[in-house]
Amino acid sequence: MDSQNIINAAMNDSTAYERLAYLCDTFGPRLSGSSNLEKALDWIISEMRLDGLKMPRGERVQVPTWIRGNESLDLILPFKKSMAMLGLGGSIATPKGGIKAEVVVVNSFDELDEKQNDVRGKIVLFNAPFTTYGETVQYRYKGASSAARYGALASLIRSVGSWSMNTPHTGVMTYDRDQPKIPHAAITMEDAMMLGRLQERGEKIVLHLRMEARSVADRWSRNVIAELPGSEFPEEIVVLGGHIDSWDVGQGAHDDGGGCVAAWQAVKLIKELGLQPKRTLRVVLWTNEENGGRGNKNYRDEHFDELKNHILAIESDGGVFNPRGFGFTGSDESRDILTDISRLLLPIDANAIFKGGRAADIAPLNDEGVPVMSLKVEGSKYFWYHHTNADTFDKVDIMEFNRCVAAMAIMAYVVADMDDRLPR
Amino acid sequence: MDSQNIINAAMNDSTAYERLAYLCDTFGPRLSGSSNLEKALDWIISEMRLDGLKMPRGERVQVPTWIRGNESLDLILPFKKSMAMLGLGGSIATPKGGIKAEVVVVNSFDELDEKQNDVRGKIVLFNAPFTTYGETVQYRYKGASSAARYGALASLIRSVGSWSMNTPHTGVMTYDRDQPKIPHAAITMEDAMMLGRLQERGEKIVLHLRMEARSVADRWSRNVIAELPGSEFPEEIVVLGGHIDSWDVGQGAHDDGGGCVAAWQAVKLIKELGLQPKRTLRVVLWTNEENGGRGNKNYRDEHFDELKNHILAIESDGGVFNPRGFGFTGSDESRDILTDISRLLLPIDANAIFKGGRAADIAPLNDEGVPVMSLKVEGSKYFWYHHTNADTFDKVDIMEFNRCVAAMAIMAYVVADMDDRLPR
Repeated sequence: MDSQNIINAAMNDSTAYERLAYLCDTFGPRLSGSSNLEKALDWIISEMRLDGLKMPRGERVQVPTWIRGNESLDLILPFKKSMAMLGLGGSIATPKGGIKAEVVVVNSFDELDEKQNDVRGKIVLFNAPFTTYGETVQYRYKGASSAARYGALASLIRSVGSWSMNTPHTGVMTYDRDQPKIPHAAITMEDAMMLGRLQERGEKIVLHLRMEARSVADRWSRNVIAELPGSEFPEEIVVLGGHIDSWDVGQGAHDDGGGCVAAWQAVKLIKELGLQPKRTLRVVLWTNEENGGRGNKNYRDEHFDELKNHILAIESDGGVFNPRGFGFTGSDESRDILTDISRLLLPIDANAIFKGGRAADIAPLNDEGVPVMSLKVEGSKYFWYHHTNADTFDKVDIMEFNRCVAAMAIMAYVVADMDDRLPR
Repeated sequence: MDSQNIINAAMNDSTAYERLAYLCDTFGPRLSGSSNLEKALDWIISEMRLDGLKMPRGERVQVPTWIRGNESLDLILPFKKSMAMLGLGGSIATPKGGIKAEVVVVNSFDELDEKQNDVRGKIVLFNAPFTTYGETVQYRYKGASSAARYGALASLIRSVGSWSMNTPHTGVMTYDRDQPKIPHAAITMEDAMMLGRLQERGEKIVLHLRMEARSVADRWSRNVIAELPGSEFPEEIVVLGGHIDSWDVGQGAHDDGGGCVAAWQAVKLIKELGLQPKRTLRVVLWTNEENGGRGNKNYRDEHFDELKNHILAIESDGGVFNPRGFGFTGSDESRDILTDISRLLLPIDANAIFKGGRAADIAPLNDEGVPVMSLKVEGSKYFWYHHTNADTFDKVDIMEFNRCVAAMAIMAYVVADMDDRLPR
């Protein structure tokens, strides 16, 4: 069996790790619409060509483009303090000179409703503790319009993270059509908790928020695609990938440079081992996952006629920590087959098959009937780094990362090499 | 025996925790010479008076005063990036407009010596990995003069910390008399490692450093002192305390607000329990530990005649994490007695007696013959926070903190209440 060869090859190769370092250090963060991202894509395509992958190419996609500009937040009362902050993606700017206003701290949307008569002309801070990402991120998505509804001038959130070292987290936010648009930014968990305590002690809190953020016209970006063609059924495709855009802070190392390079390396490794599965392995690095999802929609549309021959789509977008296995969304019959395959991952302790594999870039494919998987990792630190300046290359452990490569490679290879198609 | 009462009382009281919150949130960081520090001292003295401690007072001390001013660091080549940084305490400013120069990365003083002909007119970055604090901090202390010796225009260090989330660490630095003074600052571990990688790849690195730091004339500060008088030998004194100054970032919560409040609370608790040991318990909160040590020298000098009656001096300055026991410097005979006493701390798992108790503020007392102890805690995260913006109140766990209070209270009380003096 080839799986132990694949594991050995993955674990004894530092190419992926060095490429991830180069990607992170050379291009920096890769927000949609930035030249960093496009330069990174050029480099990836040229490297894929050196790897001998088939037809490395960029498929053009127009992406929304948001520019942070300068920004700052200062506590004015009860004492002076400059606060770490990050504007949220899609937010408007403050007026020139900023917004200086009293602050009302609320711990939840319910508490905002209770205090709705107190927030007019003020800045609302949502000091919501992290529970799950899905739950807590609602304050990032909807905080601004919720506060604007009651007349707030601006809104802030306690950063959506599970732990902090004075670390603000950015991320995308949205505006309701029916509400005035107000600036929306994240402060650190530490400062949010402190302001909560100050309010509890009856202190009057005044903040001065300055943001130059703006959205400009859509710009061109690309999904990067490259293949290892199948030997028997080349028109049948197993997709594996990640999203190559990141936020405009840190280096987008765990989110999701690592996932992209792991998928790419998985296919490179299979090729280098002289393996050619019956079906085609296609690396897809989607653009604009973070603030628009245009990449995955464009991929679905451009490849719509092929989707009936998409056997499986695998995304890694949860950090490249120790892999535990895969989440899966598809038929019970296919799940049983994948569970069998996953036993090959026992040597790296990554053999669990969990329910639910709809990661952001593959969910549109799943909507069209494609079975989907997402790499699941030991994620206890993922939301320490997510969307922060601390999501940097040094946070990636080469052994953990290489195990991700091995897990992706084995799962994709075996599914692509079966005699029969994975049933839908 | 009273020790279980003391433990119970400590563990069921949130006064110290709330006072630490108030200290941190209301006054902010407390650098020597700052009004923050002096306001904090006023508040502490007034609260100690409410506690009924004897003669809470400030003993005036002149302290060196360093002011950070504005500062920034930008990577210019090979790409643009604004870098988190902190000037080091005592550093001079850059010229107006800053220093823009090529960077030479070295991993050690030895490597600097090897590259001595390459650094003239450049910025030296010491990218030394953290080993022990005592070893790695040498780059902070001596980096500037070492680099200046070979003609460097400025020097930077990889922050002295054991782990980072894009977290620069400040701290005191010194200049050799014989070398030109050059600006000296800390960058994050992440950025230092990245610059190291860029240099390895042969990239030319250019940085633009701007610092307005300056030292001004000494200002007045105070050591805060308060007592619970002994019932039989009031002239015999057991000192317990911490240093109340901090760096000018974060809130100085673990370093060393927590240690100060723990020592203070220990004495308050003993008083509230109606206990009065035979000897006097004296809380001492030293000023200016961080950048001068004037507080501890002043205490030694002001109380020189009393030192022969200083039975024991205990400092807590390693963070208020779970206590493990105490380090001790003194005679074997007294160590045996203290080891017996430490059994009382078994219920909170803080009963170890380690070698070496010379913390910064009590070392001058030890030099005069006073036995000294320092609280030892589970310190694996201490150098995550030390001298950073992340040293904030929220990093203190109330249960761990209260165990520190209990350990300090029991050790100080029992030593103060023995029939015989602790032998020297």
